[in-house]
Amino acid sequence: MATVPSVSNSITVRLEVPATGNAVSSITTAVESSGGSVTGLDVTASGLEALRIDVTVAASSVAHGEEIVEKIRAIDGVTIGKVSDRTFLMHLGGKIEMSSKLPIRNRDDLSMIYTPGVARVCMAIAENPEDARRLTIKRNSVAVVTDGSAVLGLGNIGPQAALPVMEGKAALFKRFAGIDAWPICLDTQDADEIVAIVKAIAPGFAGINLEDISAPRCFEIEARLREALDIPVFHDDQHGTAIVVLAALTNALRVVGKDISEIRVVMSGAGAAGTAILKLLLAAGVEHATVADVRGVVHSGREDLNDSLRWIAEHTNRSGRTGTLKEAVAGADVFIGVSAPNVLDGEDLATMAEDAIVFALANPDPEVDPAVARQTAAVVATGRSDFPNQINNVLVFPGVFRGLLDAQSKTVNTEMMIAAARALATTVADDQLNANYIIPSVFHPDVAKTVAAAVREAAVAARGEGELAPSKPTPGIVGTLDTTSFPAVRL
Amino acid sequence: MATVPSVSNSITVRLEVPATGNAVSSITTAVESSGGSVTGLDVTASGLEALRIDVTVAASSVAHGEEIVEKIRAIDGVTIGKVSDRTFLMHLGGKIEMSSKLPIRNRDDLSMIYTPGVARVCMAIAENPEDARRLTIKRNSVAVVTDGSAVLGLGNIGPQAALPVMEGKAALFKRFAGIDAWPICLDTQDADEIVAIVKAIAPGFAGINLEDISAPRCFEIEARLREALDIPVFHDDQHGTAIVVLAALTNALRVVGKDISEIRVVMSGAGAAGTAILKLLLAAGVEHATVADVRGVVHSGREDLNDSLRWIAEHTNRSGRTGTLKEAVAGADVFIGVSAPNVLDGEDLATMAEDAIVFALANPDPEVDPAVARQTAAVVATGRSDFPNQINNVLVFPGVFRGLLDAQSKTVNTEMMIAAARALATTVADDQLNANYIIPSVFHPDVAKTVAAAVREAAVAARGEGELAPSKPTPGIVGTLDTTSFPAVRL
Repeated sequence: MATVPSVSNSITVRLEVPATGNAVSSITTAVESSGGSVTGLDVTASGLEALRIDVTVAASSVAHGEEIVEKIRAIDGVTIGKVSDRTFLMHLGGKIEMSSKLPIRNRDDLSMIYTPGVARVCMAIAENPEDARRLTIKRNSVAVVTDGSAVLGLGNIGPQAALPVMEGKAALFKRFAGIDAWPICLDTQDADEIVAIVKAIAPGFAGINLEDISAPRCFEIEARLREALDIPVFHDDQHGTAIVVLAALTNALRVVGKDISEIRVVMSGAGAAGTAILKLLLAAGVEHATVADVRGVVHSGREDLNDSLRWIAEHTNRSGRTGTLKEAVAGADVFIGVSAPNVLDGEDLATMAEDAIVFALANPDPEVDPAVARQTAAVVATGRSDFPNQINNVLVFPGVFRGLLDAQSKTVNTEMMIAAARALATTVADDQLNANYIIPSVFHPDVAKTVAAAVREAAVAARGEGELAPSKPTPGIVGTLDTTSFPAVRL
Repeated sequence: MATVPSVSNSITVRLEVPATGNAVSSITTAVESSGGSVTGLDVTASGLEALRIDVTVAASSVAHGEEIVEKIRAIDGVTIGKVSDRTFLMHLGGKIEMSSKLPIRNRDDLSMIYTPGVARVCMAIAENPEDARRLTIKRNSVAVVTDGSAVLGLGNIGPQAALPVMEGKAALFKRFAGIDAWPICLDTQDADEIVAIVKAIAPGFAGINLEDISAPRCFEIEARLREALDIPVFHDDQHGTAIVVLAALTNALRVVGKDISEIRVVMSGAGAAGTAILKLLLAAGVEHATVADVRGVVHSGREDLNDSLRWIAEHTNRSGRTGTLKEAVAGADVFIGVSAPNVLDGEDLATMAEDAIVFALANPDPEVDPAVARQTAAVVATGRSDFPNQINNVLVFPGVFRGLLDAQSKTVNTEMMIAAARALATTVADDQLNANYIIPSVFHPDVAKTVAAAVREAAVAARGEGELAPSKPTPGIVGTLDTTSFPAVRL
C-alpha cells in the first residue's frame, strides 16, 4: 500500500522569496508536483523586496519531505531558512505538565496547602487510610508504566525513548476521561523488579496502566501485580485491544446477522494482544476458535508450546486442525490478525465463508491489504486511521479507567471488560450501523462516558454490593458535603 | 508558647438565623469571646424568615474550633448546618493534577501527539538518548520521593498519609520555579529496595527530590543514588534546611559583625538535618563547631557512636569537650537547634558570648522560647511562621532544582549548595538587613531566580565546561530554532 501525505509527516518550511514575480505560486506547484500537499501558507513578514513565508506541507514520509524541500529550494529566488517537522515541534519540552489546582498567593494559602495545616490532613489519612481517596490525588491518578520493551511497532527501544508514547497516553487519559496519569518509564526489564517497583509506587495511584511491555513477561507481571495490589492493573496492549475487537466484532456480527456462538474464528498471532483477544472472545461466547502463529496452527501435538501456547491449544481448535494459517481460514467466518504484514491475500480470503469478517490489525501494514479484503469480505477493519473501522485502544482505556476509578474498584476482571465492549458497541445505533461503521470515532462524544458507566456498574457488582459503599463522613467536614441536605432556608 | 488563631486551623460554619433580631451580631461576639477570630461572614441566602450565613473563623486548634462552634450553637435561634475545616476542604480530591500542554481536537492532533507521528520522535530518542531532554518532559520533571518514614514532625506515618505533603511540595515546585514534580510515595522502607526503585524510575525525570525519609537510612539512600544516577539527587530535609541555615547565618553574622571562621557554633541535634547543616557549615568556613545529641556533647570518647556520630566526633569539638548541651553553649557565638522543644532556657542563653545568634528550629515548639531568646541574643530565628526570620526550605528547593535543571546537571554538590546559600543571603540588601530580617519571605520575588542562577552557574562550572554544552541540532528541526538566525528580511 502506498502511503498518502499525512499531517503526522508534515513539515513547515520557512523561506524567503522576492516580493515581486511568481515565486509564491511556484511553491505550491512544486509541492504538489512532488506528491505533497500544501496545508498552510502564512506570510510572516512582508517588505518591498522580499516576503518571508511559512509553508506547511503534508508529506508521506521523512524522505518524501526532504525531497519536497529540495524541489522548493530549486525555485528561482527562493531561500530556505528553516525546515521544521511539525510533529517534533509539538514534542519540544514534552507534552504534559503538572499543575497546581490551588493558588499559592500568600502565607495563608501556604499554611493550608503545606505546613502547618497539611499535618492535620496527613494524620487523618494515617488514622483512616481510606481517606486517601478523598483528601489526595490518589482517587484520580493512574501510573502509566512501561519498560520500553515493546513500544508501538518499534520494539525494544528502552524506557527513555518510550516516554513520548507514555506522555501521549497521559494526555489522552485527561482529554477523554479527566484522569491524571503520569508516565513511569522503568530502567529494568526484569519481571521480578518490575513487580516490586509497581507494588512500591502504588500508594499514590488508584490504577496501574501497563503499557508496551513485551510478551511473555507482560502476562506474568500483570498477573502478579493483580494478585498483590488493591488497585486495578490493566495492560492496555492486551485488554484495551481485546475490548475494542470484541466491540467491533459484536457490531460486525450485527451487520452480517451471525451469532457469536456459531461463528468460526481464525486468529493470526499469539502474542500479548492476540492472547488477550482470544480469551475475551471465548469469555464472550465464541465457541469455535483457531489460532495460528509463525509456525502455523496451534494444536496440542506441537512440540514447541510454552505455557501460553499450551493454554491456547487446550482452549481452541476443537477439531484438532494442523497446518498453515492459509489452510485454516478456509471456511472461517472471522479472521483476526494481530501479527505481521501480508500473511494473507485475496485468494485466501475468497476461501472464507460467506459474509466474512476480516480484522487485519498489524500496523502500519495489515495482514492483508484492506482494499483487497473488501472485495470478498463483508466487513473489514484495520488498525489504521486512513481506512474505515479503525480498531483503536483510545476508544477504550480512558472510559475503562474512568469507570474503575469512579467505582473505587480494587480490581479489573473479564466481566468488566465485556461490559466495556458491549457498551462501546452500543454507541453505534442501529440506524448508523453498516459495514463501514462498526466502531465509532475516538472523538465520538459518548464513547468514554458510556464505557465508564458500564465498567463502573460491573465493578460495583463485582464487589458484591448493591451500590458504592456509603461514604463515611469526610474528616474535617462535620455534617455533609451535600449542601442540599442543609435544612431548607424558608425564603 | 500559646498558639494564636490561625488560618490553617480555620473553619467555615454554615448556619441559619432568624431574619430579624440580633442573632447575627451575637455570632461575632460569641466567636471573639471564645478567643477565635471571624475572618469572613457571607450571607449565602436571605429570606423573609431566615438568613443562611457562612461564618469563617480562625481557631487555634481543632478542639478550639469545636468549642467555638458550641458557643455559636448556644445562641438563641441559631441552627448549625455544616462545619467545614477549610484546610480539609482545600485537600478534597488532591491539590495537583496532570495537564496536557497541547489540545487534542481532531485526528490531525492525535496523529502528531500520539500514533503514528510519535513513533518518529521515539526513534530519534532511541538513536540519541540525550534528545530526551529536548523532546520529552524529562528536562523539567522532578520525582518527589518519600517512604513516609519521617513526615514533617509526625513520624513514620507511611506513604499514603505522606501524600498530602508531597502534593504540596509539587505545587510549590511549580509555583516558585515552574518545575513539573510528581509525588512517588513508596510502600517500602527498605533502603536497598528504595535505591533500586528510584534508579529504575529515573529515566523520566531530570532530578530526584528525596523527602521525609528518616535517618540514618536517608544518608545511605542518597549516597547510593548519587553514585548510581546521572541526574541530581537531593534530600531536601537535609540540604534544603542546611542551605537556608547557612544563608541565615551568613546574614546574621553581617548583623553582628563576626567572621564565620572565628565563631564558635554549638548545635543541638545530630539527625538528618543537623548532620547536613554541620557539614555545610564546615564546608563554608566554620572552624569551631560542637554538636550535642540527647546523650550530650559528641566526642570521640563516647562509646555509643555510630558511623554518622563518629564522623561528627572526628570533625568537630577540637577542644575535646564533654558534658551537656547546657554546658557547651557557655561562651558560644552561635546556637543552632534541630532537635527537641525547650532544651535551653534564658539562663543558658545568658552564658553565650556577646551578640549571640540563636537558631531554634524545632517545630512547632523551638529549643528555646524565641521571645525569651530575644532578651539576650542579638539575632533569633525559628522554623515558625509567626516569628521573624523563619528558616523555611521553600526558600531553597525550588531555585536549587531550577538551577540544576537549567544546567542539565547530572549531580548536585557542596559547591552548588554553598552557591545557593550565598545567593539567598544576597537577596537581603544591606539597607534591609537587621536582626529581624536576616532571611527574606518565601514570596520575595527574587529568591527562586537568584538561587537558580547561582546553582546553574556552579553546576556548569562543576562540569568543567565554560558554558552549557553547545546544542546539537534538535532532530526534526533542520536549521535552528532561533529565528533570529534566519537571514534578515529586507523590509
